[in-house]
Amino acid sequence: MKRVFIALSLLAWTVVSAQAQTSNSPVVSNRIVLVIHGGAGTILKSQMTAEREKAYRDSLTFALKRGYAILKNGGTALDAVEATIKVLEDCPLFNAGKGAVFAHNGKNELDAAIMNGKTLEAGAVAGVTTIKNPISAARSVMEKSGHVMLIGKGAEEFAKGEGIEIVDPSYFYTEERWRSLQKAKKEDSLKAAGKAMKGSAILSNSGQNPDHKFGTVGAVALDRYGNLAAATSTGGMTNKKYGRVGDSPIIGAGTYANNETCAISCTGVGEVFMRLVVAKTVSDLIEFRHYSLQQAAEEVIMHKLGTFQGSGGLIGVDRQGNITMPFNTEGMYRGYMKEDGTVVVKVYAGE
Amino acid sequence: MKRVFIALSLLAWTVVSAQAQTSNSPVVSNRIVLVIHGGAGTILKSQMTAEREKAYRDSLTFALKRGYAILKNGGTALDAVEATIKVLEDCPLFNAGKGAVFAHNGKNELDAAIMNGKTLEAGAVAGVTTIKNPISAARSVMEKSGHVMLIGKGAEEFAKGEGIEIVDPSYFYTEERWRSLQKAKKEDSLKAAGKAMKGSAILSNSGQNPDHKFGTVGAVALDRYGNLAAATSTGGMTNKKYGRVGDSPIIGAGTYANNETCAISCTGVGEVFMRLVVAKTVSDLIEFRHYSLQQAAEEVIMHKLGTFQGSGGLIGVDRQGNITMPFNTEGMYRGYMKEDGTVVVKVYAGE
Repeated sequence: MKRVFIALSLLAWTVVSAQAQTSNSPVVSNRIVLVIHGGAGTILKSQMTAEREKAYRDSLTFALKRGYAILKNGGTALDAVEATIKVLEDCPLFNAGKGAVFAHNGKNELDAAIMNGKTLEAGAVAGVTTIKNPISAARSVMEKSGHVMLIGKGAEEFAKGEGIEIVDPSYFYTEERWRSLQKAKKEDSLKAAGKAMKGSAILSNSGQNPDHKFGTVGAVALDRYGNLAAATSTGGMTNKKYGRVGDSPIIGAGTYANNETCAISCTGVGEVFMRLVVAKTVSDLIEFRHYSLQQAAEEVIMHKLGTFQGSGGLIGVDRQGNITMPFNTEGMYRGYMKEDGTVVVKVYAGE
Repeated sequence: MKRVFIALSLLAWTVVSAQAQTSNSPVVSNRIVLVIHGGAGTILKSQMTAEREKAYRDSLTFALKRGYAILKNGGTALDAVEATIKVLEDCPLFNAGKGAVFAHNGKNELDAAIMNGKTLEAGAVAGVTTIKNPISAARSVMEKSGHVMLIGKGAEEFAKGEGIEIVDPSYFYTEERWRSLQKAKKEDSLKAAGKAMKGSAILSNSGQNPDHKFGTVGAVALDRYGNLAAATSTGGMTNKKYGRVGDSPIIGAGTYANNETCAISCTGVGEVFMRLVVAKTVSDLIEFRHYSLQQAAEEVIMHKLGTFQGSGGLIGVDRQGNITMPFNTEGMYRGYMKEDGTVVVKVYAGE
């Protein structure tokens, strides 16, 4: 049943054509880099079928190739990350766009952000329910609204006016995500019942079970003009409270790009990432303490995050083309392509 | 007419009783500090009546005394900043709570955030239209929701469930703010008409006129247990796009507190503060580059902000009780009280 679901979903996966636009900036290097993630969490080989794992790896590869082609053809980092995220948003396997999880009220509430490292311009949308590709709405906010963040109906009205594709909320229905919501609600009921029993062993709940929590897609890129960009998109948490916004659309928390330092996209328990302002902290460790990208990212993800019972990971690229993909969970869907054109895709820790 | 309005408004200004709660933490010093702001912008003595200036100064003094009494009686920084902000939210003079400006759609959309420097716990609400004191809703989000940020109807539903006072949106109607919206809309029309004329001299618009842009209230405090807290609340921008969220409710942008460094609340052109992640940058300059609070705040407000055509200011206090109140505009409503109990209130630059 699940196999059929995945196969059909992937067949139905509409590929959005992305126009590669060349930049007017001078070429500064042949270095081009694209790094992506599809969420971190309890991703265990023991719980994965070979078929499902292949579907994830194929999808990540497809998304990487889409964004990489833009960079290769002289396109900008900004175009590359937007196009890559659109591919991942359209794929039902990831918790963003089409594959978004359900909030407690049975709706899919989507958030996304994009940032241009050259100008520090940024755009974000949160709590939208009818925008097919929230990342494109975020880009429109950045480029055309005069604002950085628009939420809810206001964001949808703006996006519609800008010609962004609007869909019926039913577009985001997937059987698998709906089942996850029912399961999470059932666990919550059990937990509530358990609370009444002193010394109950029932401790898990949808807020603590990493299975429900993780899932975000992200992309960061370096183009041949020396510009960095970052983009993140998410469907939030299964069974989350109506109106909850996580770190993904928050500039500095889940998404940040600055040509002087790095481009970062995070995935994990959004609340901790917001409190620690993770992405900007990585950038500031590079700028103010002269850490390398890897040192900075590991300091935050492998040390600081755990102190606050946070889990998740991030992807990053710096202006020299160095990359980092640290996470403190069992796995993180991730991959990258550099100027040699080799596709690298990984799922589990230690891979 | 305006005099009567101010006088009546201040009479109607409901004083919310704030319970001073003592903390369980050990007293580490007799140092207590409360710093507040009521917005920055084109605040010129030439455009101010003596009566209006007095109303502002009296209101700031009243708010300071409210929060200070809590600190003096052994209350926490968190309680002090919340109580102070509630006073400012209830005062029609400031753009937050009762005095919130109108968005383009004729609604008052409110945002607020609060952060506990001891635990790095944080809470925020955005785009709410029926919560009398958004800062208290933000505190409930922090303490009871398991999330950091709730927006729109979801935030209102949660707040209602927590017993936070809900009001009819008409509560936020003030004649002065309504006139400002009509004026801004008229200017936009003139601007749109002007755009059609090549070489038109009409350049101003509601997005560029600082008169429409500024207005936020903020408080930061240090309590005798050595804990810092920050809180910010705003009604946004007059004539802003429906659904726009600025820096105030964004942890790291307009609001941030960390016992290891400082507590910060910002006011100004929210979009630039978001792109620069201002509050966290000040904290990181202290943590990673060992700047003093004043050096860090001035670096961001007096140098960096201008590079991005940003204007505004911030208030800050560090763990040693040092304070800072830099701004790059003509004025900023601001003030502070320290352990000696003297009230200091300032309005213009150079004061």
